[in-house]
Amino acid sequence: MFEQLGLIGCGLMGGSFALALKEAGLVRQVVGYSKSARTRERALELGVIDLEAATLEQAVAGSDLVLLAVPVAATESSLAAIAPVLAPRALLMDVGSTKGDVVAAARRTLGERLSRFVPAHPIAGKESAGVEHAEASLYRERQLILTPLPETHAPLVELAAELWTLLGSQVLEMSPERHDAAYASVSHLPHLLAFAAMNAILAQPQADEWLALAGPGFRDFSRIAASDPSVWRDILLANREQVLLQSRQFRAALDALEAAMLAPDADALQSLIAQASQARTGWQLGGLTYNPSEAVAA
Amino acid sequence: MFEQLGLIGCGLMGGSFALALKEAGLVRQVVGYSKSARTRERALELGVIDLEAATLEQAVAGSDLVLLAVPVAATESSLAAIAPVLAPRALLMDVGSTKGDVVAAARRTLGERLSRFVPAHPIAGKESAGVEHAEASLYRERQLILTPLPETHAPLVELAAELWTLLGSQVLEMSPERHDAAYASVSHLPHLLAFAAMNAILAQPQADEWLALAGPGFRDFSRIAASDPSVWRDILLANREQVLLQSRQFRAALDALEAAMLAPDADALQSLIAQASQARTGWQLGGLTYNPSEAVAA
Repeated sequence: MFEQLGLIGCGLMGGSFALALKEAGLVRQVVGYSKSARTRERALELGVIDLEAATLEQAVAGSDLVLLAVPVAATESSLAAIAPVLAPRALLMDVGSTKGDVVAAARRTLGERLSRFVPAHPIAGKESAGVEHAEASLYRERQLILTPLPETHAPLVELAAELWTLLGSQVLEMSPERHDAAYASVSHLPHLLAFAAMNAILAQPQADEWLALAGPGFRDFSRIAASDPSVWRDILLANREQVLLQSRQFRAALDALEAAMLAPDADALQSLIAQASQARTGWQLGGLTYNPSEAVAA
Repeated sequence: MFEQLGLIGCGLMGGSFALALKEAGLVRQVVGYSKSARTRERALELGVIDLEAATLEQAVAGSDLVLLAVPVAATESSLAAIAPVLAPRALLMDVGSTKGDVVAAARRTLGERLSRFVPAHPIAGKESAGVEHAEASLYRERQLILTPLPETHAPLVELAAELWTLLGSQVLEMSPERHDAAYASVSHLPHLLAFAAMNAILAQPQADEWLALAGPGFRDFSRIAASDPSVWRDILLANREQVLLQSRQFRAALDALEAAMLAPDADALQSLIAQASQARTGWQLGGLTYNPSEAVAA
């Protein structure tokens, strides 16, 4: 399907994409660039990439598929470096967790190559970063959101959708704004809350004792608090307005529960909990009926 | 080890205790009472109990081990009914998630049998309640907290500790106050936050779309929001002061993260996230070095 993948950033996300593409037989060779020479070498040793590029430009030139998988803070400078060397017929994608900022950066930097860019966000990941944790199955049975621009060359969106579908992802399409609002509510805010919950415990003198007593509920609730600090710093800043809006909604819901506790109004408290409990019991990963075309239309 | 277990409440917690005791060969027969006749019948069919008791008194009388495993709201009336029929040499335990309220109820009701009561809290459970989900392994490799009173007959505390150890639990001992403060922070507050996070999403018109897009991070973070509403109503009310205190600590930690987002102060934000991330990365279930004797002493 592709002659050469130019992989910019050989960490968990980029490395897993390269491995998945190879496993599916969708690429002839992978040329990888990473800012860290050590990461590049590890990626080569692990068979994630076939050739090491000494510069970003070297990895992009001659590639008919380019995946940008760098920290959010490096997105704009990377796009600026890609623009002049990207082949006219290449497909360029990213894997960032926020899309409004990426699209804005692309508009500022890509110039006439803007039409080749299909912003992408795989709903997948692990707490453990780094190429050592890359795996071909990371994107399998996971959602993949595409947020094309009005300027995006339409057949490229189809090509991108086909590619991720062949990797086992369930592909959805929506606007960057709609994407950022959705993930502020179901991903970015939960991370912020998990960070705050951990820090609240750590701020108290009994922290060690309490953490030693925590059970399986705490284990699952707090798992995302172990996420990479620089990655999440960037996500929370890039989608700040939406995350703060969701935090206000959350505080209102918490206020309602606490008001019922304080009253105390046992019936009101039970029905607030029941609402949450029923919704969560009925939920499953990627399992609700949801028509992606509605997201595109609205 | 025991002639007869009198099981008051044949749900997930009580049923699992009976099954574990039988599997370990620690009891000759189990007499079960449950308010619901259907639950009693199911418990008998499933081999969780050997004999159905028509009344609570029937299950208690003649038992040298009594486990109270009823909803928190039914604890005091159950203890009052147990007191006049409990054998003088029996061991009485509960499995409640809060201990201050249970101890207070025991003081009001148990009279001269108070010395036979060893309050217990297994750090185990599932979202799915009911005797159908009972399993002998529920308490294995889980912590079990005993919160004896000054009046508790000391050898009974040892007997209780030995019993739960034989069921595979890691037994710790502390005061009821210390227990309730600890679990407010690492269990009750996380549940409250998970309920609030679900309700905040549900309060917005895009709830269905957003929930359909949620990924594995959301799945784990929100799992405890599916917990039983009446059980958690009772826990949040029983330990209200400690939970509200922890909520204030949490809001302060959330304020700090949001202040860094608003500034924006990327370095401050990263270091707040890093604090949470490092602590959670270093944490493991029941895995921290922790000396239970300190908890007893302090």
